[in-house]
Amino acid sequence: MSQMLVLTEADLRPLLRLDARAVDSIEAAFAALATKPVAMPPILRLDIPEHRGEVDVKTAYVPGLNGFAIKVSPGFFDNPMLGLPSLNGLMILFSTRTGLVEALLLDNGYLTDVRTAAAGAVAARHLSRPESGVAAILGAGMQAKLQLEALTLVRPIREARIWARDAAKADATARDLTASLGFSVIALADPREAVSGADIVVTTTPAERPILSADWLEPGQHVTAMGADSEHKNEIDPAAFARVTYIADRLSQTRRLGELHHAISAGLIAADAPFAELGEVIAGIKPGRSRPDEITLADLTGTGVQDTAIANLALARARDAGAGRPIDTKAAAGDIA
Amino acid sequence: MSQMLVLTEADLRPLLRLDARAVDSIEAAFAALATKPVAMPPILRLDIPEHRGEVDVKTAYVPGLNGFAIKVSPGFFDNPMLGLPSLNGLMILFSTRTGLVEALLLDNGYLTDVRTAAAGAVAARHLSRPESGVAAILGAGMQAKLQLEALTLVRPIREARIWARDAAKADATARDLTASLGFSVIALADPREAVSGADIVVTTTPAERPILSADWLEPGQHVTAMGADSEHKNEIDPAAFARVTYIADRLSQTRRLGELHHAISAGLIAADAPFAELGEVIAGIKPGRSRPDEITLADLTGTGVQDTAIANLALARARDAGAGRPIDTKAAAGDIA
Repeated sequence: MSQMLVLTEADLRPLLRLDARAVDSIEAAFAALATKPVAMPPILRLDIPEHRGEVDVKTAYVPGLNGFAIKVSPGFFDNPMLGLPSLNGLMILFSTRTGLVEALLLDNGYLTDVRTAAAGAVAARHLSRPESGVAAILGAGMQAKLQLEALTLVRPIREARIWARDAAKADATARDLTASLGFSVIALADPREAVSGADIVVTTTPAERPILSADWLEPGQHVTAMGADSEHKNEIDPAAFARVTYIADRLSQTRRLGELHHAISAGLIAADAPFAELGEVIAGIKPGRSRPDEITLADLTGTGVQDTAIANLALARARDAGAGRPIDTKAAAGDIA
Repeated sequence: MSQMLVLTEADLRPLLRLDARAVDSIEAAFAALATKPVAMPPILRLDIPEHRGEVDVKTAYVPGLNGFAIKVSPGFFDNPMLGLPSLNGLMILFSTRTGLVEALLLDNGYLTDVRTAAAGAVAARHLSRPESGVAAILGAGMQAKLQLEALTLVRPIREARIWARDAAKADATARDLTASLGFSVIALADPREAVSGADIVVTTTPAERPILSADWLEPGQHVTAMGADSEHKNEIDPAAFARVTYIADRLSQTRRLGELHHAISAGLIAADAPFAELGEVIAGIKPGRSRPDEITLADLTGTGVQDTAIANLALARARDAGAGRPIDTKAAAGDIA
């Protein structure tokens, strides 16, 4: 009973890829948020300004799942100067029945990458037009790649465009994606050109000023903005709110941390204006897209229910595969459990 | 750089006992809280009412310490029916410079036991009369034992009395303590009798109604109340506030979770009434005890700086001793690091 399973990033990568079951588990978690007595406290945040460090702790209890996850995500932005990644982290999965630790998921942020991309797929499945075939990705980092890969799981994507501030990085990402996805992914120097004619636009940057102008949007487009997860980040021109049907991952959070925050600050939206949440759309409680020419905007800031869902899936797969190392906390760590 | 050290409860118990250095490290942490730009966010709390579960997450960044801890403390109060302890938990120690995980301290709450008792010693060292020789402990659980042991590190304790609602448990605890401490520890059936003539009184129970009456207090006594750590817990008669010099571990916290909370609720103390914090007394910024006949009351609800301090000490001792198991997150957990 004092045993837990330790899974490293090296264990987890082959076990849990971005696939249909990962997307389904994230979709179910969002639906639970709208339909079950989920407990999801506000994010705990610790700042260490001396080292440009910030730490977020997220958690959620989702009735019906065996475990609840607590995720710790440090971001230390001087790390690249030390040859280290900025983002790290781990998840701990606890039994919802006893509070005992079931598993330590030493993923260095990998599971967050997967659950974040999976949320993009869920948003596209419920908000984009079913025939969406052309994607535009703004940004060229890890999430740019994963968000495009995620779209291919739910929509018949046949062509994609990448734009990033760093043109060389956009080129390299486009080449990688063309090779891995088997369709044409091109880098474009003008973000407006990338967005023009796209069915789905995904913004994946840490931008602090809008990179997507309101007047670039075209009827029928779906936009997922997933870069902003703190007060100062902003990808979408607040003027876009006059043209879009807006859906939050968690409204209480996007009012503080998401694109909505900036529309409220700009005085374009009332601070308490009601909007649908993604889970409510999934559960059929509120409408998402109701017309083909509607423009939809999903604002994803990241939620604890996604962490709890992906951690449960990871442990289930690890048990099926016999992966990881059991540790008995009543024995010295040096002893093989 | 993707390596961390795993230490289990079995590793940690022999490495880190309740001793003078543990007390000193907790004292330094409280002093830092009063004198340095410590970052200590409010406690994150998750409730799982279906299983009578509650989870607290605490953290603090203390400038000058190499690491900051994040502690997860689940309490699941149906566990005893399953033959499991109610309280569990673990700490994660991160580098303050890079945010990378330095150590996983799989202590099942042991380090919390030690740092909580050490805070009792710190309070007694700074608030009780130096010649205090007689201690009264209300409660007979793990903290009853550790708090008495802690007092012996800082005061010439020569006699102790134990009272608990469960008289048989009080008897057993008194016998154990007499054997381990080498002086007379007796169990008494009447808490008033236990308090009468004591120099130091420590309340260590999860009581939801006061167990220490205001009119039992005697001039010169010091009281440490460490049982209350949530809104509904209350050990000290709010009327005692008219007679005592009150010191909080963290005022913003005791106003919500501690004995002070109940004195405020009873209308006896203003919600914003200023009081000294233990760290301010240690640092000499505010007075603690100023007269021998003064009655002092320390209200300890538990702080993240204690967790960060004890976790740093644990890792330092583990490194000195070569204890624990390194895990490389870039390698499969089954491989010996």
